[in-house]
Amino acid sequence: MSELLHNCLGGRWVAGRGAGTALLDPVLGTELVRVDAAGLDLPAGFAYARDRGGAALRALTYRQRGAMLRAALEVLQAHRDAYFEIATANSGTVKNDSAVDIDGAIYTLSTYAKLAASLPDARFLVDGEDASLAKDGTFLARHVQTPVRGLALFINAFNFPAWGLWEKAAPALLSGVPVVVKPATATAWLTQRMVKDVVDAGVLPPGALNVVCGRSAGLLDALQPMDVLSFTGSAATAATIRSHAAVARDSVRVNIEADSVNAALLLPGEAPGSAAFDALVKEVAREMTVKSGQKCTAIRRVFVPEPLFDAVAEALSARLAKATVGNPRSEAVRMGALVSRAQLTAVREGLATLKSVTKVLHDGDRHALVDADPAVACIVGPTLLGACDADGAAQVHDLEVFGPVATLMPYRDTAHALQLVGRGQGSLVASLYGCDHAALGAAALALAEGHGRVHVVSPEAAVSHTGHGNVMPQSLHGGPGRAGGGEELGGLRALNFYHRRAAVQASPAVLAALG
Amino acid sequence: MSELLHNCLGGRWVAGRGAGTALLDPVLGTELVRVDAAGLDLPAGFAYARDRGGAALRALTYRQRGAMLRAALEVLQAHRDAYFEIATANSGTVKNDSAVDIDGAIYTLSTYAKLAASLPDARFLVDGEDASLAKDGTFLARHVQTPVRGLALFINAFNFPAWGLWEKAAPALLSGVPVVVKPATATAWLTQRMVKDVVDAGVLPPGALNVVCGRSAGLLDALQPMDVLSFTGSAATAATIRSHAAVARDSVRVNIEADSVNAALLLPGEAPGSAAFDALVKEVAREMTVKSGQKCTAIRRVFVPEPLFDAVAEALSARLAKATVGNPRSEAVRMGALVSRAQLTAVREGLATLKSVTKVLHDGDRHALVDADPAVACIVGPTLLGACDADGAAQVHDLEVFGPVATLMPYRDTAHALQLVGRGQGSLVASLYGCDHAALGAAALALAEGHGRVHVVSPEAAVSHTGHGNVMPQSLHGGPGRAGGGEELGGLRALNFYHRRAAVQASPAVLAALG
Repeated sequence: MSELLHNCLGGRWVAGRGAGTALLDPVLGTELVRVDAAGLDLPAGFAYARDRGGAALRALTYRQRGAMLRAALEVLQAHRDAYFEIATANSGTVKNDSAVDIDGAIYTLSTYAKLAASLPDARFLVDGEDASLAKDGTFLARHVQTPVRGLALFINAFNFPAWGLWEKAAPALLSGVPVVVKPATATAWLTQRMVKDVVDAGVLPPGALNVVCGRSAGLLDALQPMDVLSFTGSAATAATIRSHAAVARDSVRVNIEADSVNAALLLPGEAPGSAAFDALVKEVAREMTVKSGQKCTAIRRVFVPEPLFDAVAEALSARLAKATVGNPRSEAVRMGALVSRAQLTAVREGLATLKSVTKVLHDGDRHALVDADPAVACIVGPTLLGACDADGAAQVHDLEVFGPVATLMPYRDTAHALQLVGRGQGSLVASLYGCDHAALGAAALALAEGHGRVHVVSPEAAVSHTGHGNVMPQSLHGGPGRAGGGEELGGLRALNFYHRRAAVQASPAVLAALG
Repeated sequence: MSELLHNCLGGRWVAGRGAGTALLDPVLGTELVRVDAAGLDLPAGFAYARDRGGAALRALTYRQRGAMLRAALEVLQAHRDAYFEIATANSGTVKNDSAVDIDGAIYTLSTYAKLAASLPDARFLVDGEDASLAKDGTFLARHVQTPVRGLALFINAFNFPAWGLWEKAAPALLSGVPVVVKPATATAWLTQRMVKDVVDAGVLPPGALNVVCGRSAGLLDALQPMDVLSFTGSAATAATIRSHAAVARDSVRVNIEADSVNAALLLPGEAPGSAAFDALVKEVAREMTVKSGQKCTAIRRVFVPEPLFDAVAEALSARLAKATVGNPRSEAVRMGALVSRAQLTAVREGLATLKSVTKVLHDGDRHALVDADPAVACIVGPTLLGACDADGAAQVHDLEVFGPVATLMPYRDTAHALQLVGRGQGSLVASLYGCDHAALGAAALALAEGHGRVHVVSPEAAVSHTGHGNVMPQSLHGGPGRAGGGEELGGLRALNFYHRRAAVQASPAVLAALG
């Protein structure tokens, strides 16, 4: 039997009492490690996190916590090679795709360590200007933000075991809030290892960072009203979480990032081969293949002017045809595996649904697997679908197929295009391609309300833009409606979730004594 | 039969098809008017609000919407006398208590009309500074806030039919978001009349302000993912709302203000008769009797140093004994009715529960009713309870009795007092009384995390302070945990709920074209 990974809770490393769930190599099918959370004393462990970890974190200033993040960053950098090895084995990703997760995590943590320098050397934040409540100046309202006194529970997704931990933990720890992370079981290894390295290095107070691997049973029951909960995953699980007593009855603050049928839109007025045309084709192909399309921000729907449909279909198919797919350990391979048999099945089922209302423009099955056994490896080639009747293809706007799959659709005019993008019912990100700055600005504003992020690629930014699907810590990550309604990152905006805002109404002398 | 009030939905006034529910005078028991929402086409009415009202509001700038609020304000001011008449009849409140609701509404609306001047003459807001995403300066992230494209549904409480409408509608309309208000049935008349006056005056675009009176059945089912929902009421109903598919599955953004067991705390070091001692006694007595204690912000728990328990009990009881209770039409009466028989029953039941763990320090039954029939009128006198074992009296910390009832409790030291306040599990407001500025500041910071507002009364603010329970539009209103986790008001912070934040990532030329 493989190694049983321990959980970190209550200030110690503790093994689950069950047989454990095996984590597999999605390319080779071999067992790697096991995880188990059976028999953990969650209430006691959570209390330790709140009372020991939380108290120790809150005793530090923002600047001191920034230094703590920097120390954690150095630990991660020192073990970076090991993380890539785990990613190759457990996520089946090529090195560039592992980097999106691992180096993305390191960059995000580094960004928050730096942002700490812009915060006061204090233990709470002042929010905005004082407001006068008395004409004689003897009574004022000051708004303050103080760290949440509970813990932050993260229930995370399988596709970003590294970044998914640190994009949440960095702002939480900087805010002074202890963390319990429950990684998705399929790829829990990398999350667990990163927590282990940082905890064992002793750079955080005991109880500040905890990890529970395996089943999530009981985690929500152990929450208390002052805790916060951040969930990344399916809309179905999100609905269950929102209905749990901890959230519905005890008002545990919750942040949710769920499904998203993100769009890319080539604005009117472009000819085949124009800079904007080429930028769209390049970005769509990249988004479809990076991490085998297993990014919540990946492009799922591509809208182009009707007259350009065939030209885009041809250019995209040609580009996709060059993708070498297979074992990520092979030098020739550019796109690796899906994360598990379950995901392979889900992608195939989703593809079948979409195929019922689309035609196949580029068939993923045309890609022979390099150095991988199709009977074992969880690998599919990239598939481009096309729906000439964009209005009628309801499933394309509703179903997020979490793999290397996108659907191309034609639109009549900009109003039609914007209306079609809106059929996603709220998404994480939309990208725009064009060269008319006024038209791009107007379309970006029109899409802003339905998206957490609008990414605009105009010719002058064709090289420097950061990518449709890359989540930059400086920008908001989240989206309304189907995307779950959450807000993460966005620089210091991320700290809001881990603070409570309160108005202190008092005389100037009392406000001065707040410190 | 009394008049059947019409609903405003879909751009017209429409009667419900049912027999209606009668609204009663809680002092005289007479029927006043009826409300009914049966047979309304909610989906069509909501669509009209979104598509007509919302589009017209979004076409205006913030400054233009501010002028619109000012016009609505003038309508309310012109009809102010009629509102007081309705409040006397339907809420059973004395004039000063009606003013808390009606003049509170007018002041809040006026505050937002004025705040509009500090907003740009534009249709969206820029949030913070741009962040650089490329070293060569060709790609940046700018965060914008654009108005929600859906509607704002308000499900409101019976105790503030006027203020409860406008404290939400003012920031919603200023944000450019159409409103549907569902007032609590018992006191729906005043809400309906205010909407009627403003709508009939034609100062708002058609569909911008709507009212549905009667049962709330079907309202949540008519919501769509881009709508927002603000609820004020019981924690039990709040849990039902959070579990509804619109919220749990479609991520309708929700703001909840629920139960709150607010505290007042006299800090150590005070002698009987000191300025802080007197301020506490005066404020507790006022909070218990204003609106017969039917304020979500009213003081329910009073903590004083052990040696002062008897002195505070005596001073408070003496003050409460002077309260004249009865028919609000009588000149001599200072405290009027509860809002309904149902509330009378709930208060009596709550009192019975609290009495099982407390002793009665001042008995409300000692107050003879002035000019009111005890068999008909929904009136109770103010009751002060005492619990010498503050730690053991669990019900006192958990149960919000929504009437003129508070419980006095002794504490050993400041740490004990803060811990007891925290037993409320999150409250709207706590107030502090003392003269040591450093001690007041430290206690205010310690309480900030568990409260939406901390109100500090020191001697220099004894006259100018705005009152423990008065919600000033400049200050945040809401609270974590049991209080529902919501955020309302707080000046321009209130606009956040009615906007979506998005990052626009683009070149400087495209960002310049955003306008």
